[in-house]
Amino acid sequence: MSNRIGDNYSVLIYGQSHAPSIGAVIEGLPAGFKPDWDAVGAFMARRAPGSNAMSTARKEADLPEILAGLNENGETCGAPLAMRIVNGDHRSTDYAKLKDVPRPGHADYPASVRYNSANDIRGGGQFSGRLTAPLCFAGALALQLLEKEGIRIRARVSRLAGIDDIEMDAADPQLDALCEGPLPVLDKSVAEKMTEAVAQAKSEGDSVGGLIECYAVGVPAGLGDPMFDGIENRLTRTFFGIPAVRGVEFGLGFKAADLRGSEHNDAYRMEDGTVRTVTNRHGGILGGITTGMPIIARIAIKPTPSIAKAQPSVSLSEKSNTELVISGRHDPCIIPRAVPCVEAAMAIALYDIILESRKESSQWT
Amino acid sequence: MSNRIGDNYSVLIYGQSHAPSIGAVIEGLPAGFKPDWDAVGAFMARRAPGSNAMSTARKEADLPEILAGLNENGETCGAPLAMRIVNGDHRSTDYAKLKDVPRPGHADYPASVRYNSANDIRGGGQFSGRLTAPLCFAGALALQLLEKEGIRIRARVSRLAGIDDIEMDAADPQLDALCEGPLPVLDKSVAEKMTEAVAQAKSEGDSVGGLIECYAVGVPAGLGDPMFDGIENRLTRTFFGIPAVRGVEFGLGFKAADLRGSEHNDAYRMEDGTVRTVTNRHGGILGGITTGMPIIARIAIKPTPSIAKAQPSVSLSEKSNTELVISGRHDPCIIPRAVPCVEAAMAIALYDIILESRKESSQWT
Amino acid sequence: MSNRIGDNYSVLIYGQSHAPSIGAVIEGLPAGFKPDWDAVGAFMARRAPGSNAMSTARKEADLPEILAGLNENGETCGAPLAMRIVNGDHRSTDYAKLKDVPRPGHADYPASVRYNSANDIRGGGQFSGRLTAPLCFAGALALQLLEKEGIRIRARVSRLAGIDDIEMDAADPQLDALCEGPLPVLDKSVAEKMTEAVAQAKSEGDSVGGLIECYAVGVPAGLGDPMFDGIENRLTRTFFGIPAVRGVEFGLGFKAADLRGSEHNDAYRMEDGTVRTVTNRHGGILGGITTGMPIIARIAIKPTPSIAKAQPSVSLSEKSNTELVISGRHDPCIIPRAVPCVEAAMAIALYDIILESRKESSQWT
Amino acid sequence: MSNRIGDNYSVLIYGQSHAPSIGAVIEGLPAGFKPDWDAVGAFMARRAPGSNAMSTARKEADLPEILAGLNENGETCGAPLAMRIVNGDHRSTDYAKLKDVPRPGHADYPASVRYNSANDIRGGGQFSGRLTAPLCFAGALALQLLEKEGIRIRARVSRLAGIDDIEMDAADPQLDALCEGPLPVLDKSVAEKMTEAVAQAKSEGDSVGGLIECYAVGVPAGLGDPMFDGIENRLTRTFFGIPAVRGVEFGLGFKAADLRGSEHNDAYRMEDGTVRTVTNRHGGILGGITTGMPIIARIAIKPTPSIAKAQPSVSLSEKSNTELVISGRHDPCIIPRAVPCVEAAMAIALYDIILESRKESSQWT
Repeated sequence: MSNRIGDNYSVLIYGQSHAPSIGAVIEGLPAGFKPDWDAVGAFMARRAPGSNAMSTARKEADLPEILAGLNENGETCGAPLAMRIVNGDHRSTDYAKLKDVPRPGHADYPASVRYNSANDIRGGGQFSGRLTAPLCFAGALALQLLEKEGIRIRARVSRLAGIDDIEMDAADPQLDALCEGPLPVLDKSVAEKMTEAVAQAKSEGDSVGGLIECYAVGVPAGLGDPMFDGIENRLTRTFFGIPAVRGVEFGLGFKAADLRGSEHNDAYRMEDGTVRTVTNRHGGILGGITTGMPIIARIAIKPTPSIAKAQPSVSLSEKSNTELVISGRHDPCIIPRAVPCVEAAMAIALYDIILESRKESSQWT
Repeated sequence: MSNRIGDNYSVLIYGQSHAPSIGAVIEGLPAGFKPDWDAVGAFMARRAPGSNAMSTARKEADLPEILAGLNENGETCGAPLAMRIVNGDHRSTDYAKLKDVPRPGHADYPASVRYNSANDIRGGGQFSGRLTAPLCFAGALALQLLEKEGIRIRARVSRLAGIDDIEMDAADPQLDALCEGPLPVLDKSVAEKMTEAVAQAKSEGDSVGGLIECYAVGVPAGLGDPMFDGIENRLTRTFFGIPAVRGVEFGLGFKAADLRGSEHNDAYRMEDGTVRTVTNRHGGILGGITTGMPIIARIAIKPTPSIAKAQPSVSLSEKSNTELVISGRHDPCIIPRAVPCVEAAMAIALYDIILESRKESSQWT
Repeated sequence: MSNRIGDNYSVLIYGQSHAPSIGAVIEGLPAGFKPDWDAVGAFMARRAPGSNAMSTARKEADLPEILAGLNENGETCGAPLAMRIVNGDHRSTDYAKLKDVPRPGHADYPASVRYNSANDIRGGGQFSGRLTAPLCFAGALALQLLEKEGIRIRARVSRLAGIDDIEMDAADPQLDALCEGPLPVLDKSVAEKMTEAVAQAKSEGDSVGGLIECYAVGVPAGLGDPMFDGIENRLTRTFFGIPAVRGVEFGLGFKAADLRGSEHNDAYRMEDGTVRTVTNRHGGILGGITTGMPIIARIAIKPTPSIAKAQPSVSLSEKSNTELVISGRHDPCIIPRAVPCVEAAMAIALYDIILESRKESSQWT
Repeated sequence: MSNRIGDNYSVLIYGQSHAPSIGAVIEGLPAGFKPDWDAVGAFMARRAPGSNAMSTARKEADLPEILAGLNENGETCGAPLAMRIVNGDHRSTDYAKLKDVPRPGHADYPASVRYNSANDIRGGGQFSGRLTAPLCFAGALALQLLEKEGIRIRARVSRLAGIDDIEMDAADPQLDALCEGPLPVLDKSVAEKMTEAVAQAKSEGDSVGGLIECYAVGVPAGLGDPMFDGIENRLTRTFFGIPAVRGVEFGLGFKAADLRGSEHNDAYRMEDGTVRTVTNRHGGILGGITTGMPIIARIAIKPTPSIAKAQPSVSLSEKSNTELVISGRHDPCIIPRAVPCVEAAMAIALYDIILESRKESSQWT
C-alpha cells in the first residue's frame, strides 16, 4: 500500500492539498511515551512554507491536531496515533482547464491516466509537497525516540545550483558546525552564494535543484539485513517518498564507481576495543548492515518543475499541442524545506529498523 | 522479510555460498505458463562466472533444478515455483581464521555482530554474489512474462573504470545497437578500452567499478503509485538487493540537481494521439507513476572489495590491529556479471507492478 | 499491524472510546467511485446504540466526517479515503480506580500488562465496541462495491439466548424473507421470544450471547487460495476483529465433525451448464476457494461481559482480592448491533479477495 | 501470499503431492540455534501415514533434507532455513479423467476454475494433506524454541465420530495425563471406542471427523494485539491452513453463546502475587491478548471426503452429470495425523507472536 512506510514503526499518510485535511496515522509507537510537542512544532516549522525568501509566500498554519492515540495523561496508549492538519480555504480555480493541460515535470499527466481522470488536480492533490508535513510529524516523533537510543540525525545542503559546500569528515562529521537557517552548510559564505543563485533563478522565472546529505551518528553496528531489507533498501524506499527526489546514494555513492578497490575499501582498526574504519567511504553500511560508523546518504533533488516561464504542453481533450503558463506562487527552490523532510525520512526508517532488531535482541545462546 | 521481494510477483531467495543449495521460491506466476527454459538458461549463463577474462576462473554449473510448481505438462499450476541450484564441493578452509579477521569492504564484520558470530563465513555465506543466480532465474521468467505485455528490458555498461560509453538517446534508446558480449556498450571501441582497464587493474592486484544503465521500453503510462510505492521506490528496493550497489538514480538523476527547471522539465507533445515528451530527462517516471516514455535507471557499482593487495584489518578475538591478505580467485570487475542482475531486478519489480495494476484495471465508471 | 485489515481493500481503524475521534483510513478504493452516502448512513445506523430496547440508552451521533480522499466532484480520487467520527463529551470518572480493578471478561487486565499500564482505560479505550463504527463505515462502502459485482451479503441471528431461528436453505438462502428490525430472523415469532429473553436477562442484571449466520450470494467460483490465504483464513481474521467473537465456522462447521464422509460431501450436479452442488454443507468453500455456492459463516458471540451483578476481581496495586460493581449503562445483548458488524467484516474481506483475484484475471493462454 | 504464514517467524510452504519435492523455507529463526533433529523427526513421524490402522497403508519416507540455512557447525546462521522432502515415485494414472470429474468435498472443481484448468490434479496437487509435512517441520522447530521460553503445547482428540473424551480442567489442563498413541485422550477407554468407530466406518467404505483441542501452557500475560492481529486472528489463520478444518473456537467457543454473562465471565483472583482467573472459560485470551491462563483452541475437522462409496458428480468437459468412484487407499479418519498438525500450527503462530512482542519489550519509561 503506497501511502504507508515501515513494518514496525509504521506511518500511513493521507490527504490531498485541497482536501479538508491531510494527516498521518502512526502504529508502533511504544506505549507510555509522552512526546515533546514543542520540539515537534519546531521541527515542522522548518518545513513550513513562507519561512524564508526561497519559498512561496503562502502561509500555512500546519498545526497538527491529535485525533487519537493518547491516554488521559497525554501518553501514547498503544493505540495508533492519528493526527490531522486542517487545510485552509483555497482560492477557487478553473480545475477543468488544469485537468486538460498537464504541467511539464509534474504528475498531472501520469496521474490522469492512473486514476482514469478522477485524480484530484487541486493544488497537486495527493502529489503535493504539502503531504510532507505529516511525514515531518512522524519523523519528529521518531527523532525523539532515536535520541533516547543515542542516535542523532542531521542533514546539510551539500550542493545547490551547482555550488558545493566544503567537505565534511565522513568518519567524524561535524554536525554541530553546520550553520543555522534555511541552508545548513559548513561554510556560511557558501550559503550566501546559494541564496543569491536562488534569487537569480527566481528573478528569471526559473528554479534550481541541489543535493542533500544526511548523517546518522550513534547507530550501533549489526542493524539491518542482507538483500532486500538492507539499510539502503529501507532508507531509499522512504527517501523516494519525498517529491522531486531523483537519486539516492550511500557513502561515496556514484563516485565509488570510479575508484579502485584499494582506493575504496575502508581499512578496519581497533579503537579502545571497538571496531572502526579509518575512513568512511562505505557510509556506515556493508552488506545492508550497519558497521557502527556514521550512516551517510545523499539525495538528489530536481529543480522545482513549477516555473513562471511558458512551456509547451498538450490538451488532453483536444489531443493537440498547446502552451502552458503556470500561475500562482511557487518555491524557486525547495531544498531548504526538503532538508527536514530528508531527516524525517531517515528517522522513520531507522527507528523502524531499531524496532525490527529487537526481535533478534535475545540471540540464541 | 529480507530475502523476499515483490508483493504480487514475489520472489524468496535462499542459500549460502557453501550451503548444500541456493535457490528461489516464486509466488504469483500465472497458472498455465510454460517457461522457455532455454531462454532461462541463456540468460543465467550471462551471469555465470568464468565466462570472460574479467571474471573469476571458477566454474559453476548453476543448473537450476525445479523442485515444485509445474503440472504434468510442465506448465505452472498455481502453486509456488521452487527451484534449487546445487552448490559444488568446496575446498576446506580454516574458517576460524576467516571469522576472526574481517575483510575490508565486505559484510564479514557487520554480519558477525548481526548474527552473534553464527554467520556462515564460508564463501561469503548469504552475502555472496552467488545468490544473484536465483535472482537471475526469477528475472528470466519475469522477462518472458513482460515480453508478452510488450515490455522489453536491456542494460548497458555506461561507464567502467572512469571510461564512458557514448551517449544514448533517452527518448528513443537504441537497444538493438548495443554490442554483444560481456560489456554491452554502444561504441565497441569503448568496450575494448574498458577491457584493458580491467586487465590493468587485475595485473596490479586491484579491482574497478562502474555504472550500469538499464532501460525498459514499451511500458504503458499510468503504472505505479505516489509516495512509498512509486516506480522508483520499488525498483530501488530490488536494485539494492544486488551486492556492491552504492547508488541508484532515475532519468538525469544527480545531474538533474544542477539544472534549472526550464532546462530539466520535459515538454509534452501530442504524437499520433498519444502523449509523449520531446526529451526524456525524467526517465519515464513522474510522481512515482510511468509516463509511457522509456524508464531509465542508473546503478553505481563499487569496485570489488576482494583484492590481492594486503590490507589493514583487525583481529576480533584479540581486539588488535592486523594485516589481511585475501587468497583465492576473485573478479577484478563484477560489472559484466552484474548487467544481467540489473536487468533481472528491473524485470522482477516491473512485473510485480504490472500485476499490481491489474487490481485497478476495471476502474469505476 | 493490528489495526489494519486487507491487502488490497485495506482498512486501518484508529481511535479510542474517549479519544477526540475514532475513524478509518481506507486504501484500495477504485478511483472515480461516488459513494451513496445515504446508504452508508443507513447501514451505520443499524450499529448505532440506543436504537432498540436491547442496547444501551446512550446516544451517539456517529456522523462520519470525510477528511480526505474525494475530488472536487465528490468521487474517490485514488488517494486514501480518511474519515473520523468525533467522540462526544464524556462524563469524568475516577480512571485511577478503573485501572486498578480489572473487569472480568474484559481486556482491562491483559491490556494493562501489554501496554505497561499506559493503556487508555476510559470507556474501554481501543478495545471498545465503539471501534466497530469505522468498521461498518468501511463495510458499507465495500457492500456497494460488491453489489456492482453482483454479490450480496446478509446476516441473521440464528440463535440467541439458546433460542434457534428456523432452518435456512443453505443452497438457496431466503435472504429476502428475513424480517426487518434489530433481530433479523426467518420466523418473526422467534424474534419475539429472543427479545423477551434479553429483557429477562436485563431485569436480572445479566446479559446473553448468541450466534450470527452470515451469507454471501452471487460469489463466483474460483476466488481465494489454498493454505493460509483461503476464504476462511481471510474472513476469520476479519471476524475476530469484532469484540466478543469466540468462534467461527463455515458451512456445517462443528456439526460436520459428527458426520460421515458420505453424509457431509455435497454431490455435484450440472445445472444449465453451471456446476453446482445439490446441498451446501461446505458453505461455498472447498480448499480455501469459492465453489460458486453461497458462502455461509457462523459467528459465536459471547454474552456481554459488563453486567450489573457484583463480581470477584483483584486490586492490581494492592495485589489483593476485591469485589467489583460495574456502573453505567451497558447492552444486555450486543447481537443486534453485531449483525451489521459481521456483514461489514464479510464485505471488507470479500471485496479484498475480489481485488486480489483481478491480478490473475488474464490467465495465461 | 497464500503459502506463507507469520510476520516474524515466517514459514513458506511449497510443493505438490506428485512434484519432485515438497518443502519449506523458514525466515526469522534466531541465529546460533542448533535444532534437535531427533525431536524434529519424532514429531514428524506422528504425522506420517501408515503409522496406525486409521491411516492409509501408503509409506512415505518424509525425511527432511536441509538445503540451506546452517553454518559449518550445524547452527542456524541468520539465512533462511530451506528444506525439502523428496516425493517418491508415484503410480501413473489417467490424469485427464481425474481432471474432468471433480471429487465431491475436494478442491478439484474450484481449483480447476481458479487455475484455468492448469492445476496439478495428481494426488491432490498443492491441496494434498501431504503439504502438512513441511508445516510439521516448521512447527517442530517452533516447539523447541517455545520450550526455551517455558511454553508447552499439546493437543488431544476431544471428540471423534460423535464420541467425547472426558472433561479437561481448563484452568489447569492435565497434559501429562493424555495417553500415548494416535488418539491422545484423557480416558483410554474412549480411545478404544473411537478406534472401533473408525474401523466400522472404514468397513462401510466411509469416513469420520472429529474435534481437536489444543492447549498452550506457560504463555505469559500481555502477548497479542487488539482487533485484527489478536491471538485468535493469528492462530486461526494458521489453523485454517490445515486441510479439512471447518471451524475454530477459543475457550468455551460456541457454547459461550448460550451462557449468561454471569455464567461466562471468569472471576479474577490474586494467587501468590499473580493475577489468575478462577475458571478459564475465556481460554487464555481477552481482547486478543493473553491473560496468562492456558490458551485453549478447538478445531473441527470434517470427515475425509475421499470415500469408497460411489458419488454423484459431473463431467466438466461434457457438462453432464455422472457418477464417480474414487480408487486408491485413503485415510478413513485423518484426526490422528491432524493432531500434530494442530500443535505445529499453534507453535508457529505463538512463536511468531513471541518475536513480535519483543519489539515492545523495552517499554517507554
